Amino acid sequence: MKMSDGVEQAIHSVAMLSGLSEGGVLSAAALAEFHGVSTSYLLKHLQTLSGAGILDTVPGPKGGYRLAKAAEEISLLDILLAVEGPAPAFRCAEIRQRGPNPVSDRFFAKPCNISAAMLRAERVYRAELAKTSIADLGIELNALDDGSIAARGCAFLEIHERKTAR
Amino acid sequence: MKMSDGVEQAIHSVAMLSGLSEGGVLSAAALAEFHGVSTSYLLKHLQTLSGAGILDTVPGPKGGYRLAKAAEEISLLDILLAVEGPAPAFRCAEIRQRGPNPVSDRFFAKPCNISAAMLRAERVYRAELAKTSIADLGIELNALDDGSIAARGCAFLEIHERKTAR
Ligand code: FES
Ligand code: FES
Repeated sequence: MKMSDGVEQAIHSVAMLSGLSEGGVLSAAALAEFHGVSTSYLLKHLQTLSGAGILDTVPGPKGGYRLAKAAEEISLLDILLAVEGPAPAFRCAEIRQRGPNPVSDRFFAKPCNISAAMLRAERVYRAELAKTSIADLGIELNALDDGSIAARGCAFLEIHERKTAR
Repeated sequence: MKMSDGVEQAIHSVAMLSGLSEGGVLSAAALAEFHGVSTSYLLKHLQTLSGAGILDTVPGPKGGYRLAKAAEEISLLDILLAVEGPAPAFRCAEIRQRGPNPVSDRFFAKPCNISAAMLRAERVYRAELAKTSIADLGIELNALDDGSIAARGCAFLEIHERKTAR
């Protein structure tokens, strides 16, 4: 089971936007260039994030995307669910009810134990991802500021902001 | 992100085999019939489970599959990893290192915070699934024995055992 590459791209894009000065905007092309990914593919995910209320779309020649809310209020789970959809990875097809000699429906009122255990695991997975916000990532990135990705990201953003301020 | 349908089929097949009397064998066709799934598709997963040391293959006309170890020693995680492979769902493509002006490799010695957070969530997911064994499911199924799937499974297994004992 492999998650879409869009998840990594979407989280990094939101993290990068959170590094801009308040209300800062980056185009899909700039976000794609910085991450070395296809603009058209990333655009699809940016639009999904915008539909989910995580990003705002800014129209016009200096337009693009900006955070729709505070970085503290966007969790990794929010982004995952926006990109991958809300359905759990395990989807019970009720195979216990197929086969020969099906018994009365009332025997299947309770969910299957197997399905219940799989969904319990999905719940702890989601709870773990809900704990980390985009702001938490930023703080951690800055804490490593002996020259981590944050340094490179900041240099890129400064150049971008100088360019768009012209 | 959707897990393969094979996971549900593999777990239910192993659970059904655990309900047989000690060392009991069911053919792929019997397991497929009970769960209303394609024999050839299920066969692929049964062979994978056999390769992973979860099932034993029993050759011959009354052959099929049986548990390779005690139901207590087979967790849901073991079956998931056998069917889906060991790679985590989130796979970091190091997109932080692409794009313009790449900086020195030493800046990327530490794993990306985003990747670390995603893998932390995968670890709690796996730990949760490791907690439930096939034997636990059986016990829970029996505990619901006002007419749960266990009742239907047992009836099916009795018929099967009567047939093969002939
Ligand atoms: S019937 Fe779907 S997991 Fe049991
Ligand atoms: S570079 Fe892959 S998650 Fe950050």
